[in-house]
Amino acid sequence: MNEREVLSNYVYQIVASLVASGVEQVVVSPGSRSTPLAYAFASTKELTLHRQVDERAAGFYALGLAKATAKPVVLLCTSGTAGANYYPAIVEAKYARVPLIVLTADRPHELREVGAPQTINQVRLYGENVKWSAEFPIPDEAPQTLPYIERHTVRAVTIATTAPFGPVHLNIPFREPLVIDFKTQLQRVSFVKSFTNDLTPSKQTLAEFTSIIEQTKNGIIIVGELPLGTDTKALWNFVRELKWPVMIESLSNLRTEVPEDCQVFAITTYDALMKNERFKRNVRPQTVIRFGAQPISKFLMQFIAQSNPLHYIVIDEDPMFRDSTHSSTHFIHALPGEWLSEIEISHVETELAYIEFWKTADLLAADAIAKYGQTANDEGAYVQLMLESLHEGTDIFVSSSMPIRDIDTFLPVLNNDIQVFANRGTNGIDGVTSTALGFSNGRANRKTYLLIGDLAFLHDANAFVASRYQDCDLTVIVLNNDGGGIFSYLPQAKVEAHYEELFGTPTALAFEQVATMYDMEYVKVTSKEQFLATITSEKQQSLKLIEVFTNREENVKEHRALWTRINEVIEQWLDML
Amino acid sequence: MNEREVLSNYVYQIVASLVASGVEQVVVSPGSRSTPLAYAFASTKELTLHRQVDERAAGFYALGLAKATAKPVVLLCTSGTAGANYYPAIVEAKYARVPLIVLTADRPHELREVGAPQTINQVRLYGENVKWSAEFPIPDEAPQTLPYIERHTVRAVTIATTAPFGPVHLNIPFREPLVIDFKTQLQRVSFVKSFTNDLTPSKQTLAEFTSIIEQTKNGIIIVGELPLGTDTKALWNFVRELKWPVMIESLSNLRTEVPEDCQVFAITTYDALMKNERFKRNVRPQTVIRFGAQPISKFLMQFIAQSNPLHYIVIDEDPMFRDSTHSSTHFIHALPGEWLSEIEISHVETELAYIEFWKTADLLAADAIAKYGQTANDEGAYVQLMLESLHEGTDIFVSSSMPIRDIDTFLPVLNNDIQVFANRGTNGIDGVTSTALGFSNGRANRKTYLLIGDLAFLHDANAFVASRYQDCDLTVIVLNNDGGGIFSYLPQAKVEAHYEELFGTPTALAFEQVATMYDMEYVKVTSKEQFLATITSEKQQSLKLIEVFTNREENVKEHRALWTRINEVIEQWLDML
Repeated sequence: MNEREVLSNYVYQIVASLVASGVEQVVVSPGSRSTPLAYAFASTKELTLHRQVDERAAGFYALGLAKATAKPVVLLCTSGTAGANYYPAIVEAKYARVPLIVLTADRPHELREVGAPQTINQVRLYGENVKWSAEFPIPDEAPQTLPYIERHTVRAVTIATTAPFGPVHLNIPFREPLVIDFKTQLQRVSFVKSFTNDLTPSKQTLAEFTSIIEQTKNGIIIVGELPLGTDTKALWNFVRELKWPVMIESLSNLRTEVPEDCQVFAITTYDALMKNERFKRNVRPQTVIRFGAQPISKFLMQFIAQSNPLHYIVIDEDPMFRDSTHSSTHFIHALPGEWLSEIEISHVETELAYIEFWKTADLLAADAIAKYGQTANDEGAYVQLMLESLHEGTDIFVSSSMPIRDIDTFLPVLNNDIQVFANRGTNGIDGVTSTALGFSNGRANRKTYLLIGDLAFLHDANAFVASRYQDCDLTVIVLNNDGGGIFSYLPQAKVEAHYEELFGTPTALAFEQVATMYDMEYVKVTSKEQFLATITSEKQQSLKLIEVFTNREENVKEHRALWTRINEVIEQWLDML
Repeated sequence: MNEREVLSNYVYQIVASLVASGVEQVVVSPGSRSTPLAYAFASTKELTLHRQVDERAAGFYALGLAKATAKPVVLLCTSGTAGANYYPAIVEAKYARVPLIVLTADRPHELREVGAPQTINQVRLYGENVKWSAEFPIPDEAPQTLPYIERHTVRAVTIATTAPFGPVHLNIPFREPLVIDFKTQLQRVSFVKSFTNDLTPSKQTLAEFTSIIEQTKNGIIIVGELPLGTDTKALWNFVRELKWPVMIESLSNLRTEVPEDCQVFAITTYDALMKNERFKRNVRPQTVIRFGAQPISKFLMQFIAQSNPLHYIVIDEDPMFRDSTHSSTHFIHALPGEWLSEIEISHVETELAYIEFWKTADLLAADAIAKYGQTANDEGAYVQLMLESLHEGTDIFVSSSMPIRDIDTFLPVLNNDIQVFANRGTNGIDGVTSTALGFSNGRANRKTYLLIGDLAFLHDANAFVASRYQDCDLTVIVLNNDGGGIFSYLPQAKVEAHYEELFGTPTALAFEQVATMYDMEYVKVTSKEQFLATITSEKQQSLKLIEVFTNREENVKEHRALWTRINEVIEQWLDML
């Protein structure tokens, strides 16, 4: 075999193994060393190739694709710092539990650490932030090589897609020349299938869990962002069986799919309610059962910790389960799967009054929230207007820091197939637009909106380079308050010296030029009426940028006024009891 | 002491230790967890504070500042993926040997790996890419704490500024509340001074080195990019003493400071000459002495390896010395310092004819290069025009991949105080503009030009966010050939299928909108005359973007024509001998 045949067989063996393992999408950044794999990907009809020059943006784009499809997505870049640019997206993928298969092309061993250009130490480049990392051999003719790289590629995908999902890294060295022979038919892969585990708890675990539930008078369920691909039917069956109030976070995507007979259990205003001390004293739970990621609401989590419940059970697919208040009492290593439908409560201690108490308060708070836009014109009012007016079959990708909090406050129980997503693994403001673009391209039949602040938008302005290489359909709503809005809510906002310099960080930038540069439709919004007309006129497949100019101080004032109003309503109601 | 006093003493102890260690510049990105240090930096008059929202850009900006000043520069960011965005700049700093002091604020231990927001595992976040990493304690009242963090901070700076320079990382956890009491006077630092070593070789080493030189008939010196802060006087004394041809790379910044009596030794056209086989056969050296980084010229390095010299001596401040062709025979662990002036050659074997042979060829090639612009209108012609017309006291920051090669081809021996800098640690196209902006701000009395291709420019478009926070003075010349120009020179350019898709990657973007967005003067260049008028009209302190539209195929054609012309001239000359 000549060098070129050896190289071709090697890269197509990787491609065939990825395809056999269920990979459908590949995100490539241009570079020289990655040439053999890039050509093999481009020539494989089973794969969709996406491109992005900026590897940081490419990493997040792949993350978005994986979140949208709940499937592993491949990243490919050249040698050198290219791979280091993936780092923020990889860290987010680790904590958000998203399966990314990161392939870094590398120079061969003889060019490493010897001053050769575009060569860094790529072995274990991502440290503990990937679930697994392997260094592939230089392509050769040895009979062991192809079976080995086939197994290692399949293994990489299996590890990435085993709960908890996460990123894996393969470092692949190539010697020049880097040109391959194109193949139209993928070669044979001998390994047939990996059966990943659905982490159903054992009978013994279920018995103990059921016993705790049966002893509970006042229990609550909390549902945060769920593992990718979770079928929520079983969760609703579980709620039906327990008849406990369930705090449903916007990111769980349960709010817009509450079954009719579960409406009474669904609580969405807990963040506002948890600001009232009397209410909290009245609803202290004996048992808390939590699914998914930590909720956005700090007040809810503090309430749970202060309540010191007899049982605080965290159900998580990772033994490194999430419990930032160190108050859990039990951990069940499980995915929220079919087993939840099979829980049967024989002896019910649950008090109906407890549910009614929660639900009444929730309705009062929800009513106050619903009226928010009648007086307010701040970011919250715009977010609420958006939620009220979006069409069926819409996804909203939401940025940290303030937009996701507003969505969580203003998203009511709805029945209109709106889903909400965000990068909450690490809550960064980096790569949000890229994630939304990748996400949108992974959900072809639905419309995606991105809700984002100006600093996060600015941080990832390069996201739109992707739109030069593939069609993108995304409506971006930038809430431009000229700087870091969330800091206005923090204690340091009271320190006048250096505040704007360090935290406000106003840039006085508007983003019309970004829209012009990338041929995006641009609308500068100056009123709620215009905003409504703009977002409801969404039809065509395109990129659109809607910029809403808001005021940081007004945002803080209006939000605080809402919390005060809810507090007053709750106080009046408690007085009447 | 109350919490706030403890916290204030802690952060000002870090600041005082940094100042005492010679730190003058700090680059901060906004965030909450880093509040105490950000406030302490902002309130310290001994420090200049720079700001940049995008941490990736901030990392490179700090790198540029450190390259410009040859002093350690501090980076500060908040917890979470913020620090992961520094990774590309840190990797570049490692390989380019630039002292960066990276401070990542962190959440306290109880919030790590428990699902708390903006919390990742920051301990050893940068793996082997920093020279040293330490985890600081949570601020407390223990009498050991302040002395410990003082020593560790000083130690961090000492390590970063010990040859080989490089990045270090301190991870610093803070508990809420994050507000400090401002201090106007820095507290006492008990440690007085670190004397770093200048790595002068021992007498025994010098004797052996001198003996090799004395035995050599035909020797050459190669000087690549030198360690930060190198005084080049000793190097010229060394050249004077040896009287060997010296291949001086543009990045050594020796080309524009060749002393009158050393002109005969200075060779700049080696990359072109090394494309002629007959010439190469005539100049095979017995001994090669190399200083600094690997030269840009692959042809030169291949020539050295093929020549198989009796002695190929690499002088490097890192025992992990650079030798990508694995052909060195000796390594001297040293900085290119004063000791080079003290070398005395008692017995000279060097043949004068050897020097004359090199110099004649060099002058022939230099003449052909000087005439390039008479016929060519490609990127090379613009680079040449720029080099001919810049004022005294100018720095050019140059991007990978093609611009630096053009500078290296077209920069002749000059006497006009032009200096050339680039990110050649890993040769990435990431962060180049940010590095140039930081660099420019570190060299207040000189004018900086950035020469960059369109993909590199696009990759770091966020660099200009820095200009919203501090005055910036930079003229950016974008050579826009709509895609990855360097790939046109590689073998894969001959593969038609998927080529433009994977390598050309045209974006059809122009950058006028970037200029508008950031209030930069913008000039679209359509002729060499206009280009000349534009760059020589540089006066005021400002940001200016000059966009030159070029053609990838024409670039390749004209460069190849030049190499052919030089080859012909050399052949004719060799025929006459």
